[in-house]
Amino acid sequence: MAIREGKTFRYSNASIMSYASVVGKTESEGPYGDEFDEVIEDNKGGAETFEQAEGLFQQKALQRAMDKTALTADKMDLIFAGDLLNQCTGSSYGLKDFYIPFLGIFGACSTFAQGLLLAGAMVNAGYVDNAAAVTSSHFSSAERQFRFPLNYGGVRTPTAQWTATAAGAAIVAATQKPPFIRAATVGKIEDMGISDLNNMGAAMAGAAYDTILRHFRHMGTGVDSYDLIITGDLGQVGSDMLYELFKRDGIDIEKRHKDCGLLLYDREKQDVHAGGSGCGCSAAMMCGHFLKHVENGDLKRILYAATGALMSPTMVQQGGNIPGISHAVEICYK
Amino acid sequence: MAIREGKTFRYSNASIMSYASVVGKTESEGPYGDEFDEVIEDNKGGAETFEQAEGLFQQKALQRAMDKTALTADKMDLIFAGDLLNQCTGSSYGLKDFYIPFLGIFGACSTFAQGLLLAGAMVNAGYVDNAAAVTSSHFSSAERQFRFPLNYGGVRTPTAQWTATAAGAAIVAATQKPPFIRAATVGKIEDMGISDLNNMGAAMAGAAYDTILRHFRHMGTGVDSYDLIITGDLGQVGSDMLYELFKRDGIDIEKRHKDCGLLLYDREKQDVHAGGSGCGCSAAMMCGHFLKHVENGDLKRILYAATGALMSPTMVQQGGNIPGISHAVEICYK
Repeated sequence: MAIREGKTFRYSNASIMSYASVVGKTESEGPYGDEFDEVIEDNKGGAETFEQAEGLFQQKALQRAMDKTALTADKMDLIFAGDLLNQCTGSSYGLKDFYIPFLGIFGACSTFAQGLLLAGAMVNAGYVDNAAAVTSSHFSSAERQFRFPLNYGGVRTPTAQWTATAAGAAIVAATQKPPFIRAATVGKIEDMGISDLNNMGAAMAGAAYDTILRHFRHMGTGVDSYDLIITGDLGQVGSDMLYELFKRDGIDIEKRHKDCGLLLYDREKQDVHAGGSGCGCSAAMMCGHFLKHVENGDLKRILYAATGALMSPTMVQQGGNIPGISHAVEICYK
Repeated sequence: MAIREGKTFRYSNASIMSYASVVGKTESEGPYGDEFDEVIEDNKGGAETFEQAEGLFQQKALQRAMDKTALTADKMDLIFAGDLLNQCTGSSYGLKDFYIPFLGIFGACSTFAQGLLLAGAMVNAGYVDNAAAVTSSHFSSAERQFRFPLNYGGVRTPTAQWTATAAGAAIVAATQKPPFIRAATVGKIEDMGISDLNNMGAAMAGAAYDTILRHFRHMGTGVDSYDLIITGDLGQVGSDMLYELFKRDGIDIEKRHKDCGLLLYDREKQDVHAGGSGCGCSAAMMCGHFLKHVENGDLKRILYAATGALMSPTMVQQGGNIPGISHAVEICYK
C-alpha cells in the first residue's frame, strides 16, 4: 500500500485565548481535583437525566470560558462541538441556547483535539475572529449507551476504562498570546483488529503511533523536541502498546509521554481499572491543567494527540472491529 | 436577545473537481433515477447488514468520485464525512480502508453541506490540496435506529419523510474550473418546539430561514440573485413553513426554491408521504443532478442550504424537542 502522508497544517495566527473545565465528583477527588473551574458534586447539577446533565456540563464549560474574556455569545463566531452520545446530543442540546453558529464533529474521545485543530484552522485563515472547541462525556450516560445500565451492576474487566464525567471548552482567537496552536495533523482511521468493548486503549494505540510519527516527520521534530507528548486516553494497556510500537523504530517515547486517562484519577485509591476515558477526559486535563502550564511558560512545546475509539455497539455485535483515530495538535508558549 | 450574525466565509480558490452518487432501488425509480452513477438494486450490494451496506454506499461513492480524476487514495489529503447512524459508523467503517486523513462530522441531514463548507475552507486556505465531503443514509438502517424495525410494520404518518438510501461524495480542490464554491454560512441550532419524530421538516424550516437570510445579508444578495435556492429535505410540510416565514418579510422564495426531499421521489407513484430525507437525499441530488448543471453553465449561481434535524430518540423520550440546523453553500459557474 502506498503511504498516506496527509498534510500537517501550520498556524501563525491562532491562540487559545480562554479555556475552562467542569467535572463531576469522582474527577474532583482525583489528583488534579483542585485545578478544574467547577465541580458538580451530584453529577447532575439540577438536570433530570444523565443525558441532559451532560449537555449542562458543556453549557457551563463554554459559559465559563467566555466569562474569562470580554466575549459574550453574540460576539462568538463559531463553535465546533461533539460528544459520545448518540446524535451528539450533549452538544446540540447543551449548546443550543447560546445560538452561536455551530458545526457538529465526531471523533469519539479525540473530539477535543479535532475541535482545537478546526477552530485553529478557521481562525488562522481569517474566516472567523474566534471559534470555540467544546466537548464532554458522562460516566452514567456513556455506560448505559455503550455497555450496561448502571443498575445492572455488571462487573468491569481489568482492561476497562472509566468514562470521565467532565467537559472542556477552549476559545481560539488571533490574540497573539500563549498558548499558541502552531500545527496540527489529522489522523487516519486505524483498525488494529480489536473487538473488545472493554479494551479500547489497545484499539487506539496504533492510531496515535501513526499520527505522532507523521507529525514528527512533517515538522522535522522528534520526541526530544517536545516537553511532553500527551495522549488522550490510551490508559495503561494502550500506553504500553504505544511504547512498544515506537520501540520497534528505536524511539523512546515513554520518557516524555503522559496519558490523560492515567492522570485524571488516582488509580491506587479510585477503582477505575485501566484509567479514564471519554471526550471529557483529555478535554478536562488540557483545560484544567496543561494549557495553564503552556500559558505561563512552564511547558514550552507540547504535542497533544487525543485518541478516539470509533466504536459502535451495533457494528461490534455484527462482528466488526473497533477502529481507532488520533488527531495531534502542537501547542506552544511561543 | 442580541443578534448572532456569525460570518459568511468567502472562497476564491475552491472548485468541486469531481462528484459521484450511489443510490438504492427506490431512488433509481424516481424522476432522477437515470442521473446517478450507480444503483445498488438490492440496497445491500453484498453486505451482510443494512449498517454495513450503508458504509459500502459511501465507499463506492468516494471511489467513483476519485475514479473521475487522476487522484488515488494515497494522493487524497483529507475527508470530511458523517451520517445518521449512531457513532457515524457508515462513515468510519465505510471509509476506513482508504486510509485517508479523516475528520468525522455530524450535522444530521445537513452533513453534506457541512462537508462541502469545511472541505472548501481547508482547500481555499491552502491547508490541503484536496478534501472530500462524503455522506450517506439508508432507509433500513435509519428506520430501525430512529423509529421502528421494518418488520414491525408500523403505519407511517402523512408528515413522515422517507429516508433516502443513497450516498454522495464530492472532491474539492483548487482546480479553477466550475462548479466553484464561492461562499458559505454556518447554521445555528434552532429549536422550534417540535417534538414529533415524524414531522422533522417543520423542525428544520426555521433553521433554513435563519441561515438563508443571514447569507443574503452578508453577501448583499436576495432571492433573485440565485437561479435556484435548494434546501436539503424540508419535505412538503417544511417547505410550506419556509415560504410562510419568508412571506412575513415580504420575500417570495417559493419561485426559486427546490427541495431535494420533494425531488428525489415521484410522490404520485411512490409511497414516500412528505418526501425524502436523510443525509444521502440532498447529497445524491447535488452529486447526481445539480452540480452537473452548474458545471455546464445551465445554472450560474445556486444556494444549497441543506437542513438537519439534530434529533435524538433518547432526548425526545425524555420530553425534549428536535432542534434543527441548516448550513448554506453558494456554488457558482464562475
